[in-house]
Amino acid sequence: MKVFVLFVAVAVATWQCQGSDEGDDHGANFQIFPLRMKTGLGGHYIPEVSCQSWMLGVEAHNIIGFSTVPKDCIGYIGNYLVGDQYRSDSKTVCREAYFYLKTLNITDKDAWVFDIDETTLSNLPYYADHGFGAEPYNPAAFDKWVDLGAAPALPESLKLYRKLVSLGVKIVFITGRPLSQRDVTASNLKRAGYDKWDWLITKDPSIYNGKTAVTYKSKERRKIEEEGYNIIGNIGDQWSDILGTNVGGRTFKLPDPMYYIS
Amino acid sequence: MKVFVLFVAVAVATWQCQGSDEGDDHGANFQIFPLRMKTGLGGHYIPEVSCQSWMLGVEAHNIIGFSTVPKDCIGYIGNYLVGDQYRSDSKTVCREAYFYLKTLNITDKDAWVFDIDETTLSNLPYYADHGFGAEPYNPAAFDKWVDLGAAPALPESLKLYRKLVSLGVKIVFITGRPLSQRDVTASNLKRAGYDKWDWLITKDPSIYNGKTAVTYKSKERRKIEEEGYNIIGNIGDQWSDILGTNVGGRTFKLPDPMYYIS
Repeated sequence: MKVFVLFVAVAVATWQCQGSDEGDDHGANFQIFPLRMKTGLGGHYIPEVSCQSWMLGVEAHNIIGFSTVPKDCIGYIGNYLVGDQYRSDSKTVCREAYFYLKTLNITDKDAWVFDIDETTLSNLPYYADHGFGAEPYNPAAFDKWVDLGAAPALPESLKLYRKLVSLGVKIVFITGRPLSQRDVTASNLKRAGYDKWDWLITKDPSIYNGKTAVTYKSKERRKIEEEGYNIIGNIGDQWSDILGTNVGGRTFKLPDPMYYIS
Repeated sequence: MKVFVLFVAVAVATWQCQGSDEGDDHGANFQIFPLRMKTGLGGHYIPEVSCQSWMLGVEAHNIIGFSTVPKDCIGYIGNYLVGDQYRSDSKTVCREAYFYLKTLNITDKDAWVFDIDETTLSNLPYYADHGFGAEPYNPAAFDKWVDLGAAPALPESLKLYRKLVSLGVKIVFITGRPLSQRDVTASNLKRAGYDKWDWLITKDPSIYNGKTAVTYKSKERRKIEEEGYNIIGNIGDQWSDILGTNVGGRTFKLPDPMYYIS
Protein backbone atom coordinates (compact mmCIF):
# COMPACT_ATOMS: atom_id res chain seq x y z
CA MET A 1 0.00 0.00 0.00
CA LYS A 2 3.03 2.32 0.46
CA VAL A 3 3.34 2.85 -3.29
CA PHE A 4 -0.32 3.67 -3.45
CA VAL A 5 0.02 6.32 -0.73
CA LEU A 6 2.90 7.85 -2.63
CA PHE A 7 0.82 7.95 -5.78
CA VAL A 8 -1.99 9.65 -3.88
CA ALA A 9 0.45 12.21 -2.47
CA VAL A 10 1.79 12.99 -5.92
CA ALA A 11 -1.71 13.23 -7.33
CA VAL A 12 -2.78 15.59 -4.55
CA ALA A 13 0.28 17.76 -5.04
CA THR A 14 -0.32 17.88 -8.79
CA TRP A 15 -3.93 18.87 -8.19
CA GLN A 16 -2.83 21.73 -6.05
CA CYS A 17 -0.32 23.07 -8.52
CA GLN A 18 -2.58 22.64 -11.47
CA GLY A 19 -5.60 24.01 -9.68
CA SER A 20 -4.23 27.48 -9.12
CA ASP A 21 -4.41 28.59 -12.74
CA GLU A 22 -8.14 28.05 -12.88
CA GLY A 23 -10.26 30.62 -11.25
CA ASP A 24 -13.67 31.41 -9.98
CA ASP A 25 -14.30 33.80 -12.81
CA HIS A 26 -15.98 31.44 -15.25
CA GLY A 27 -19.47 32.30 -16.48
CA ALA A 28 -21.64 34.28 -14.09
CA ASN A 29 -24.67 32.65 -15.75
CA PHE A 30 -26.15 29.61 -14.05
CA GLN A 31 -27.01 28.07 -17.40
CA ILE A 32 -23.47 28.01 -18.69
CA PHE A 33 -21.39 25.09 -17.56
CA PRO A 34 -17.75 25.32 -18.49
CA LEU A 35 -17.39 21.81 -19.76
CA ARG A 36 -13.83 21.96 -20.74
CA MET A 37 -12.30 21.42 -17.38
CA LYS A 38 -8.63 20.70 -17.20
CA THR A 39 -8.42 17.37 -15.47
CA GLY A 40 -5.83 14.66 -15.23
CA LEU A 41 -2.11 14.83 -14.82
CA GLY A 42 -1.62 15.79 -18.45
CA GLY A 43 -4.21 18.57 -18.26
CA HIS A 44 -6.40 17.00 -20.93
CA TYR A 45 -9.96 18.05 -21.56
CA ILE A 46 -12.37 15.17 -20.91
CA PRO A 47 -16.00 16.08 -21.60
CA GLU A 48 -17.33 12.74 -20.24
CA VAL A 49 -15.80 13.52 -16.87
CA SER A 50 -17.34 16.99 -16.84
CA CYS A 51 -20.80 15.84 -17.92
CA GLN A 52 -20.80 13.15 -15.26
CA SER A 53 -19.86 15.82 -12.71
CA TRP A 54 -22.67 18.01 -13.95
CA MET A 55 -25.16 15.18 -13.53
CA LEU A 56 -23.88 14.32 -10.07
CA GLY A 57 -24.17 18.01 -9.19
CA VAL A 58 -27.82 17.96 -10.24
CA GLU A 59 -28.62 14.74 -8.37
CA ALA A 60 -26.95 15.89 -5.14
CA HIS A 61 -28.84 19.21 -5.33
CA ASN A 62 -25.77 21.34 -5.88
CA ILE A 63 -26.75 22.49 -9.36
CA ILE A 64 -30.21 24.04 -9.17
CA GLY A 65 -32.45 26.30 -11.21
CA PHE A 66 -31.14 25.32 -14.64
CA SER A 67 -33.50 25.74 -17.56
CA THR A 68 -31.61 23.69 -20.15
CA VAL A 69 -28.87 21.10 -19.92
CA PRO A 70 -25.35 22.05 -21.08
CA LYS A 71 -25.25 21.82 -24.85
CA ASP A 72 -22.04 19.78 -24.87
CA CYS A 73 -23.67 17.18 -22.59
CA ILE A 74 -26.58 16.33 -24.87
CA GLY A 75 -24.81 13.24 -26.19
CA TYR A 76 -23.76 12.16 -22.73
CA ILE A 77 -27.23 12.61 -21.28
CA GLY A 78 -28.94 10.91 -24.21
CA ASN A 79 -26.64 7.92 -23.95
CA TYR A 80 -27.18 7.81 -20.21
CA LEU A 81 -30.96 7.80 -20.52
CA VAL A 82 -31.21 5.06 -23.11
CA GLY A 83 -28.44 2.97 -21.58
CA ASP A 84 -27.82 0.69 -18.64
CA GLN A 85 -26.76 3.36 -16.17
CA TYR A 86 -30.15 5.09 -15.90
CA ARG A 87 -31.87 1.77 -15.34
CA SER A 88 -29.29 0.69 -12.78
CA ASP A 89 -29.43 4.03 -10.97
CA SER A 90 -33.24 3.86 -10.80
CA LYS A 91 -33.15 0.27 -9.60
CA THR A 92 -30.70 1.19 -6.85
CA VAL A 93 -33.04 3.90 -5.56
CA CYS A 94 -36.07 1.59 -5.60
CA ARG A 95 -34.07 -1.14 -3.91
CA GLU A 96 -33.37 1.21 -1.00
CA ALA A 97 -37.11 1.77 -0.78
CA TYR A 98 -37.65 -2.02 -0.52
CA PHE A 99 -35.04 -2.29 2.23
CA TYR A 100 -36.75 0.54 4.06
CA LEU A 101 -40.20 -1.08 3.70
CA LYS A 102 -38.87 -4.24 5.32
CA THR A 103 -38.08 -2.30 8.49
CA LEU A 104 -41.70 -1.13 8.87
CA ASN A 105 -44.90 -2.61 10.24
CA ILE A 106 -47.37 -1.48 7.60
CA THR A 107 -50.84 -0.38 8.71
CA ASP A 108 -53.86 0.57 6.60
CA LYS A 109 -53.19 4.22 7.41
CA ASP A 110 -49.80 4.18 5.72
CA ALA A 111 -49.44 6.03 2.44
CA TRP A 112 -46.72 6.38 -0.18
CA VAL A 113 -46.37 9.42 -2.43
CA PHE A 114 -45.28 9.14 -6.04
CA ASP A 115 -44.59 12.00 -8.39
CA ILE A 116 -45.61 11.19 -11.97
CA ASP A 117 -43.37 12.57 -14.75
CA GLU A 118 -39.97 10.82 -14.83
CA THR A 119 -41.02 9.01 -11.65
CA THR A 120 -43.94 6.73 -12.52
CA LEU A 121 -44.24 7.60 -16.20
CA SER A 122 -41.33 8.19 -18.56
CA ASN A 123 -41.41 10.96 -21.13
CA LEU A 124 -38.27 9.68 -22.77
CA PRO A 125 -39.95 9.20 -26.18
CA TYR A 126 -40.80 12.92 -26.08
CA TYR A 127 -37.41 14.09 -24.82
CA ALA A 128 -35.55 11.94 -27.35
CA ASP A 129 -37.17 14.15 -29.97
CA HIS A 130 -36.42 17.34 -28.03
CA GLY A 131 -32.73 17.14 -27.28
CA PHE A 132 -32.95 15.40 -23.87
CA GLY A 133 -33.37 18.69 -22.04
CA ALA A 134 -31.25 20.81 -24.39
CA GLU A 135 -34.29 22.63 -25.80
CA PRO A 136 -36.07 25.07 -23.50
CA TYR A 137 -39.36 23.76 -22.08
CA ASN A 138 -42.04 23.93 -24.78
CA PRO A 139 -45.45 23.76 -23.06
CA ALA A 140 -47.47 23.37 -26.29
CA ALA A 141 -45.38 20.48 -27.60
CA PHE A 142 -45.19 18.79 -24.22
CA ASP A 143 -48.95 19.07 -23.65
CA LYS A 144 -49.53 17.49 -27.04
CA TRP A 145 -47.35 14.55 -25.98
CA VAL A 146 -49.10 14.27 -22.60
CA ASP A 147 -52.49 14.28 -24.32
CA LEU A 148 -51.51 11.14 -26.23
CA GLY A 149 -51.59 9.29 -22.90
CA ALA A 150 -48.84 7.06 -24.23
CA ALA A 151 -46.01 7.52 -21.73
CA PRO A 152 -44.53 4.16 -20.68
CA ALA A 153 -43.98 3.18 -17.06
CA LEU A 154 -40.57 3.53 -15.50
CA PRO A 155 -40.07 -0.19 -14.91
CA GLU A 156 -38.33 0.00 -11.53
CA SER A 157 -40.96 2.40 -10.21
CA LEU A 158 -43.72 0.10 -11.44
CA LYS A 159 -42.18 -2.75 -9.47
CA LEU A 160 -42.02 -0.59 -6.35
CA TYR A 161 -45.66 0.44 -6.91
CA ARG A 162 -46.73 -3.21 -7.20
CA LYS A 163 -44.88 -4.07 -4.01
CA LEU A 164 -46.59 -1.22 -2.17
CA VAL A 165 -50.02 -2.24 -3.47
CA SER A 166 -49.41 -5.84 -2.38
CA LEU A 167 -48.50 -4.58 1.11
CA GLY A 168 -51.74 -2.58 1.30
CA VAL A 169 -50.00 0.80 1.37
CA LYS A 170 -52.23 3.65 0.16
CA ILE A 171 -51.02 5.03 -3.16
CA VAL A 172 -50.85 8.79 -3.67
CA PHE A 173 -49.91 10.39 -6.97
CA ILE A 174 -49.10 14.10 -6.73
CA THR A 175 -48.22 15.69 -10.05
CA GLY A 176 -47.51 19.17 -11.32
CA ARG A 177 -49.73 18.37 -14.29
CA PRO A 178 -52.80 20.63 -14.31
CA LEU A 179 -56.35 19.63 -13.44
CA SER A 180 -57.21 19.78 -17.17
CA GLN A 181 -54.87 16.82 -17.79
CA ARG A 182 -56.24 14.71 -14.97
CA ASP A 183 -58.30 12.37 -17.16
CA VAL A 184 -55.61 11.67 -19.70
CA THR A 185 -53.13 11.14 -16.87
CA ALA A 186 -55.45 8.64 -15.19
CA SER A 187 -55.87 6.65 -18.40
CA ASN A 188 -52.13 6.82 -19.11
CA LEU A 189 -51.35 5.49 -15.63
CA LYS A 190 -53.71 2.54 -16.19
CA ARG A 191 -52.35 1.86 -19.64
CA ALA A 192 -48.82 1.81 -18.21
CA GLY A 193 -49.76 -0.70 -15.51
CA TYR A 194 -50.62 1.49 -12.52
CA ASP A 195 -54.16 0.20 -12.24
CA LYS A 196 -55.29 1.55 -8.89
CA TRP A 197 -54.59 4.39 -6.47
CA ASP A 198 -56.13 6.18 -3.55
CA TRP A 199 -55.34 9.75 -4.56
CA LEU A 200 -54.47 11.28 -7.90
CA ILE A 201 -53.73 14.91 -7.19
CA THR A 202 -53.21 17.35 -10.04
CA LYS A 203 -52.32 21.02 -9.67
CA ASP A 204 -55.43 23.19 -9.41
CA PRO A 205 -54.54 26.55 -10.99
CA SER A 206 -57.25 28.31 -8.97
CA ILE A 207 -55.35 27.43 -5.77
CA TYR A 208 -51.72 27.10 -6.79
CA ASN A 209 -51.24 29.49 -9.69
CA GLY A 210 -47.70 30.84 -9.50
CA LYS A 211 -46.82 28.72 -6.48
CA THR A 212 -43.73 26.54 -6.52
CA ALA A 213 -43.92 22.77 -6.67
CA VAL A 214 -42.49 22.64 -3.14
CA THR A 215 -45.37 24.74 -1.78
CA TYR A 216 -48.06 22.92 -3.75
CA LYS A 217 -46.82 19.42 -2.97
CA SER A 218 -46.18 20.18 0.71
CA LYS A 219 -49.75 21.46 1.14
CA GLU A 220 -51.28 18.46 -0.60
CA ARG A 221 -49.21 16.04 1.49
CA ARG A 222 -50.25 17.91 4.61
CA LYS A 223 -53.94 17.51 3.72
CA ILE A 224 -53.44 13.75 3.47
CA GLU A 225 -51.71 13.60 6.84
CA GLU A 226 -54.47 15.75 8.34
CA GLU A 227 -56.92 13.10 7.18
CA GLY A 228 -55.12 10.69 9.50
CA TYR A 229 -52.72 9.02 7.07
CA ASN A 230 -49.04 8.57 7.66
CA ILE A 231 -46.77 9.18 4.68
CA ILE A 232 -44.12 6.51 5.09
CA GLY A 233 -42.30 7.26 1.86
CA ASN A 234 -42.11 9.72 -0.99
CA ILE A 235 -40.39 9.27 -4.34
CA GLY A 236 -39.73 11.76 -7.10
CA ASP A 237 -37.24 12.79 -9.74
CA GLN A 238 -37.14 16.43 -8.59
CA TRP A 239 -35.86 17.74 -5.29
CA SER A 240 -39.04 19.82 -5.14
CA ASP A 241 -40.95 16.52 -4.82
CA ILE A 242 -39.20 15.62 -1.60
CA LEU A 243 -38.33 18.95 0.05
CA GLY A 244 -40.71 21.13 2.09
CA THR A 245 -43.01 19.84 4.84
CA ASN A 246 -44.74 16.50 5.43
CA VAL A 247 -42.10 14.91 3.23
CA GLY A 248 -42.65 11.41 4.59
CA GLY A 249 -40.69 8.94 6.71
CA ARG A 250 -38.08 8.66 4.00
CA THR A 251 -37.61 10.31 0.65
CA PHE A 252 -36.15 8.86 -2.54
CA LYS A 253 -34.65 10.84 -5.40
CA LEU A 254 -34.78 9.21 -8.81
CA PRO A 255 -32.29 10.46 -11.40
CA ASP A 256 -33.34 13.13 -13.89
CA PRO A 257 -30.67 15.05 -15.76
CA MET A 258 -33.14 16.61 -18.22
CA TYR A 259 -34.91 19.40 -16.35
CA TYR A 260 -35.27 21.20 -13.04
CA ILE A 261 -38.52 22.22 -11.34
CA SER A 262 -38.36 24.42 -8.26
CA MET B 1 -35.01 11.35 -34.73
CA LYS B 2 -37.74 8.83 -35.68
CA VAL B 3 -35.30 5.94 -35.54
CA PHE B 4 -34.16 7.11 -32.15
CA VAL B 5 -37.71 7.16 -30.79
CA LEU B 6 -38.19 3.64 -32.06
CA PHE B 7 -35.01 2.56 -30.36
CA VAL B 8 -36.17 4.15 -27.13
CA ALA B 9 -39.52 2.38 -27.42
CA VAL B 10 -37.82 -0.97 -27.95
CA ALA B 11 -35.47 -0.29 -25.05
CA VAL B 12 -38.35 0.64 -22.77
CA ALA B 13 -40.31 -2.46 -23.78
CA THR B 14 -37.28 -4.64 -23.18
CA TRP B 15 -36.79 -3.08 -19.76
CA GLN B 16 -40.30 -3.92 -18.81
CA CYS B 17 -40.08 -7.55 -19.87
CA GLN B 18 -36.68 -8.05 -18.34
CA GLY B 19 -37.54 -6.21 -15.16
CA SER B 20 -40.25 -8.54 -14.00
CA ASP B 21 -38.00 -11.47 -13.17
CA GLU B 22 -36.10 -9.49 -10.58
CA GLY B 23 -37.68 -9.00 -7.24
CA ASP B 24 -37.69 -6.93 -4.18
CA ASP B 25 -36.45 -9.74 -2.03
CA HIS B 26 -32.73 -9.03 -2.14
CA GLY B 27 -30.85 -8.62 1.14
CA ALA B 28 -32.75 -7.24 4.11
CA ASN B 29 -29.46 -5.82 5.39
CA PHE B 30 -28.69 -2.21 4.56
CA GLN B 31 -24.99 -2.93 4.36
CA ILE B 32 -25.29 -5.49 1.60
CA PHE B 33 -25.51 -4.13 -1.89
CA PRO B 34 -26.33 -6.69 -4.52
CA LEU B 35 -23.78 -5.62 -7.05
CA ARG B 36 -24.51 -8.11 -9.69
CA MET B 37 -27.44 -6.39 -11.24
CA LYS B 38 -28.71 -7.64 -14.53
CA THR B 39 -28.47 -4.68 -16.81
CA GLY B 40 -28.36 -4.21 -20.55
CA LEU B 41 -30.28 -5.90 -23.28
CA GLY B 42 -28.14 -9.02 -23.00
CA GLY B 43 -28.65 -9.22 -19.25
CA HIS B 44 -24.93 -8.98 -18.53
CA TYR B 45 -23.55 -8.23 -15.11
CA ILE B 46 -21.61 -4.97 -15.12
CA PRO B 47 -20.07 -4.12 -11.73
CA GLU B 48 -18.90 -0.65 -12.84
CA VAL B 49 -22.50 0.30 -13.59
CA SER B 50 -23.64 -0.96 -10.19
CA CYS B 51 -20.88 0.75 -8.24
CA GLN B 52 -21.58 4.04 -10.00
CA SER B 53 -25.26 3.60 -9.06
CA TRP B 54 -24.27 2.92 -5.48
CA MET B 55 -22.21 6.10 -5.36
CA LEU B 56 -24.96 8.17 -6.95
CA GLY B 57 -27.35 6.68 -4.39
CA VAL B 58 -25.06 7.86 -1.59
CA GLU B 59 -24.60 11.36 -3.05
CA ALA B 60 -28.33 11.89 -3.65
CA HIS B 61 -29.09 10.75 -0.08
CA ASN B 62 -30.93 7.61 -1.08
CA ILE B 63 -28.43 5.22 0.45
CA ILE B 64 -27.97 6.15 4.09
CA GLY B 65 -26.63 4.64 7.30
CA PHE B 66 -24.02 2.37 5.72
CA SER B 67 -21.03 1.46 7.86
CA THR B 68 -18.75 0.08 5.13
CA VAL B 69 -18.73 0.40 1.36
CA PRO B 70 -19.70 -2.65 -0.74
CA LYS B 71 -16.72 -4.95 -0.91
CA ASP B 72 -16.96 -5.36 -4.68
CA CYS B 73 -16.79 -1.58 -5.12
CA ILE B 74 -13.44 -1.06 -3.36
CA GLY B 75 -11.60 -0.96 -6.68
CA TYR B 76 -14.15 1.35 -8.24
CA ILE B 77 -14.13 3.74 -5.29
CA GLY B 78 -10.34 3.73 -5.00
CA ASN B 79 -9.96 4.52 -8.68
CA TYR B 80 -12.59 7.23 -8.39
CA LEU B 81 -10.85 8.91 -5.47
CA VAL B 82 -7.37 9.01 -6.98
CA GLY B 83 -8.62 9.84 -10.47
CA ASP B 84 -10.01 12.74 -12.44
CA GLN B 85 -13.66 12.22 -11.59
CA TYR B 86 -13.38 13.05 -7.88
CA ARG B 87 -11.49 16.22 -8.68
CA SER B 88 -13.95 17.20 -11.39
CA ASP B 89 -16.96 16.43 -9.18
CA SER B 90 -15.50 18.55 -6.35
CA LYS B 91 -14.69 21.39 -8.72
CA THR B 92 -18.23 21.37 -10.06
CA VAL B 93 -19.65 21.74 -6.55
CA CYS B 94 -17.28 24.60 -5.67
CA ARG B 95 -18.03 26.29 -8.97
CA GLU B 96 -21.72 26.40 -8.07
CA ALA B 97 -20.69 28.07 -4.82
CA TYR B 98 -18.80 30.75 -6.82
CA PHE B 99 -21.82 31.35 -9.04
CA TYR B 100 -23.96 31.69 -5.95
CA LEU B 101 -21.52 34.13 -4.31
CA LYS B 102 -21.73 36.37 -7.37
CA THR B 103 -25.46 36.84 -6.79
CA LEU B 104 -24.90 38.19 -3.25
CA ASN B 105 -23.95 41.53 -1.75
CA ILE B 106 -21.52 40.43 0.92
CA THR B 107 -21.56 42.21 4.30
CA ASP B 108 -19.21 41.81 7.27
CA LYS B 109 -21.91 39.83 9.05
CA ASP B 110 -21.92 37.09 6.43
CA ALA B 111 -20.43 33.74 7.36
CA TRP B 112 -19.65 30.51 5.53
CA VAL B 113 -19.55 27.12 7.21
CA PHE B 114 -17.04 24.45 6.24
CA ASP B 115 -16.93 20.92 7.53
CA ILE B 116 -13.34 19.64 7.88
CA ASP B 117 -12.77 15.95 7.05
CA GLU B 118 -13.19 15.24 3.32
CA THR B 119 -14.33 18.86 2.95
CA THR B 120 -11.37 21.11 3.77
CA LEU B 121 -8.84 18.41 4.60
CA SER B 122 -8.45 15.13 2.76
CA ASN B 123 -7.80 11.89 4.61
CA LEU B 124 -7.14 10.04 1.39
CA PRO B 125 -3.60 9.02 2.42
CA TYR B 126 -5.18 7.31 5.45
CA TYR B 127 -8.06 5.71 3.58
CA ALA B 128 -5.79 4.47 0.79
CA ASP B 129 -4.20 2.31 3.48
CA HIS B 130 -7.58 1.27 4.90
CA GLY B 131 -9.55 0.01 1.95
CA PHE B 132 -11.23 3.29 0.95
CA GLY B 133 -14.11 2.73 3.34
CA ALA B 134 -14.18 -1.09 3.07
CA GLU B 135 -12.78 -1.52 6.59
CA PRO B 136 -15.05 -0.62 9.50
CA TYR B 137 -14.19 2.69 11.17
CA ASN B 138 -11.13 2.23 13.37
CA PRO B 139 -11.03 5.12 15.88
CA ALA B 140 -7.55 4.32 17.23
CA ALA B 141 -5.93 4.16 13.80
CA PHE B 142 -7.78 7.21 12.53
CA ASP B 143 -6.87 9.28 15.61
CA LYS B 144 -3.24 8.35 15.10
CA TRP B 145 -3.48 9.68 11.54
CA VAL B 146 -5.25 12.86 12.66
CA ASP B 147 -2.58 13.45 15.31
CA LEU B 148 0.06 13.61 12.59
CA GLY B 149 -1.60 16.84 11.43
CA ALA B 150 -0.55 15.96 7.89
CA ALA B 151 -3.82 15.85 5.97
CA PRO B 152 -3.56 17.76 2.69
CA ALA B 153 -6.09 20.36 1.60
CA LEU B 154 -8.82 19.43 -0.83
CA PRO B 155 -7.61 21.75 -3.58
CA GLU B 156 -11.01 22.91 -4.87
CA SER B 157 -12.19 23.64 -1.32
CA LEU B 158 -9.01 25.60 -0.64
CA LYS B 159 -9.74 27.76 -3.67
CA LEU B 160 -13.28 28.38 -2.45
CA TYR B 161 -11.93 29.23 1.01
CA ARG B 162 -9.47 31.74 -0.47
CA LYS B 163 -12.23 33.36 -2.49
CA LEU B 164 -14.40 33.69 0.61
CA VAL B 165 -11.53 35.18 2.64
CA SER B 166 -10.85 37.71 -0.14
CA LEU B 167 -14.52 38.72 -0.07
CA GLY B 168 -14.39 39.28 3.68
CA VAL B 169 -16.80 36.44 4.49
CA LYS B 170 -16.39 35.09 8.04
CA ILE B 171 -14.98 31.57 8.02
CA VAL B 172 -16.51 28.94 10.28
CA PHE B 173 -15.12 25.42 10.62
CA ILE B 174 -17.46 22.98 12.34
CA THR B 175 -16.03 19.51 12.72
CA GLY B 176 -17.05 16.29 14.40
CA ARG B 177 -13.46 15.98 15.64
CA PRO B 178 -13.36 16.16 19.44
CA LEU B 179 -12.13 19.09 21.54
CA SER B 180 -8.99 17.08 22.34
CA GLN B 181 -7.96 17.26 18.66
CA ARG B 182 -8.57 20.99 18.35
CA ASP B 183 -4.90 22.02 18.47
CA VAL B 184 -3.64 19.47 15.99
CA THR B 185 -6.56 20.34 13.71
CA ALA B 186 -5.71 24.04 13.88
CA SER B 187 -2.08 23.39 12.99
CA ASN B 188 -3.08 20.97 10.22
CA LEU B 189 -5.43 23.58 8.72
CA LYS B 190 -2.61 26.16 8.69
CA ARG B 191 -0.14 23.70 7.24
CA ALA B 192 -2.62 22.87 4.47
CA GLY B 193 -3.09 26.53 3.56
CA TYR B 194 -6.15 27.54 5.58
CA ASP B 195 -4.33 30.25 7.50
CA LYS B 196 -7.15 32.14 9.18
CA TRP B 197 -10.68 31.63 10.41
CA ASP B 198 -13.23 33.21 12.72
CA TRP B 199 -14.53 30.05 14.38
CA LEU B 200 -13.03 26.59 14.71
CA ILE B 201 -15.69 24.52 16.44
CA THR B 202 -14.88 21.01 17.63
CA LYS B 203 -17.32 18.64 19.28
CA ASP B 204 -17.38 19.06 23.05
CA PRO B 205 -18.18 15.63 24.51
CA SER B 206 -19.54 17.21 27.71
CA ILE B 207 -22.33 18.80 25.63
CA TYR B 208 -22.83 16.55 22.63
CA ASN B 209 -21.94 13.06 23.82
CA GLY B 210 -24.16 10.62 21.93
CA LYS B 211 -25.81 13.35 19.87
CA THR B 212 -25.91 13.07 16.09
CA ALA B 213 -23.86 15.30 13.84
CA VAL B 214 -27.10 16.91 12.61
CA THR B 215 -28.05 17.96 16.16
CA TYR B 216 -24.55 19.12 17.11
CA LYS B 217 -23.91 21.08 13.92
CA SER B 218 -27.38 22.64 13.87
CA LYS B 219 -26.95 23.94 17.42
CA GLU B 220 -23.52 25.37 16.73
CA ARG B 221 -24.76 27.10 13.56
CA ARG B 222 -27.68 28.50 15.51
CA LYS B 223 -25.33 30.00 18.11
CA ILE B 224 -23.47 31.82 15.35
CA GLU B 225 -26.68 33.19 13.87
CA GLU B 226 -27.83 34.23 17.35
CA GLU B 227 -24.65 36.31 17.58
CA GLY B 228 -25.96 38.28 14.61
CA TYR B 229 -24.20 36.54 11.75
CA ASN B 230 -25.88 35.34 8.60
CA ILE B 231 -24.76 31.95 7.28
CA ILE B 232 -24.82 32.48 3.53
CA GLY B 233 -23.42 29.07 2.64
CA ASN B 234 -22.50 25.73 4.08
CA ILE B 235 -20.36 23.01 2.52
CA GLY B 236 -19.72 19.46 3.62
CA ASP B 237 -19.17 15.94 2.38
CA GLN B 238 -21.91 14.46 4.61
CA TRP B 239 -25.62 15.13 4.42
CA SER B 240 -25.50 15.58 8.20
CA ASP B 241 -23.36 18.69 7.57
CA ILE B 242 -26.09 20.39 5.61
CA LEU B 243 -29.37 19.04 7.03
CA GLY B 244 -31.09 20.23 10.21
CA THR B 245 -31.67 23.87 11.15
CA ASN B 246 -29.78 27.10 10.35
CA VAL B 247 -28.33 25.32 7.32
CA GLY B 248 -27.44 28.53 5.50
CA GLY B 249 -28.62 30.35 2.40
CA ARG B 250 -27.41 27.50 0.24
CA THR B 251 -25.84 24.17 0.97
CA PHE B 252 -23.23 22.28 -1.03
CA LYS B 253 -22.58 18.55 -0.89
CA LEU B 254 -19.09 17.42 -1.80
CA PRO B 255 -18.69 13.80 -2.89
CA ASP B 256 -17.68 11.16 -0.36
CA PRO B 257 -18.24 7.51 -1.17
CA MET B 258 -16.13 6.27 1.78
CA TYR B 259 -18.26 6.69 4.88
CA TYR B 260 -21.57 7.91 6.26
CA ILE B 261 -22.10 9.98 9.41
CA SER B 262 -25.65 10.54 10.62
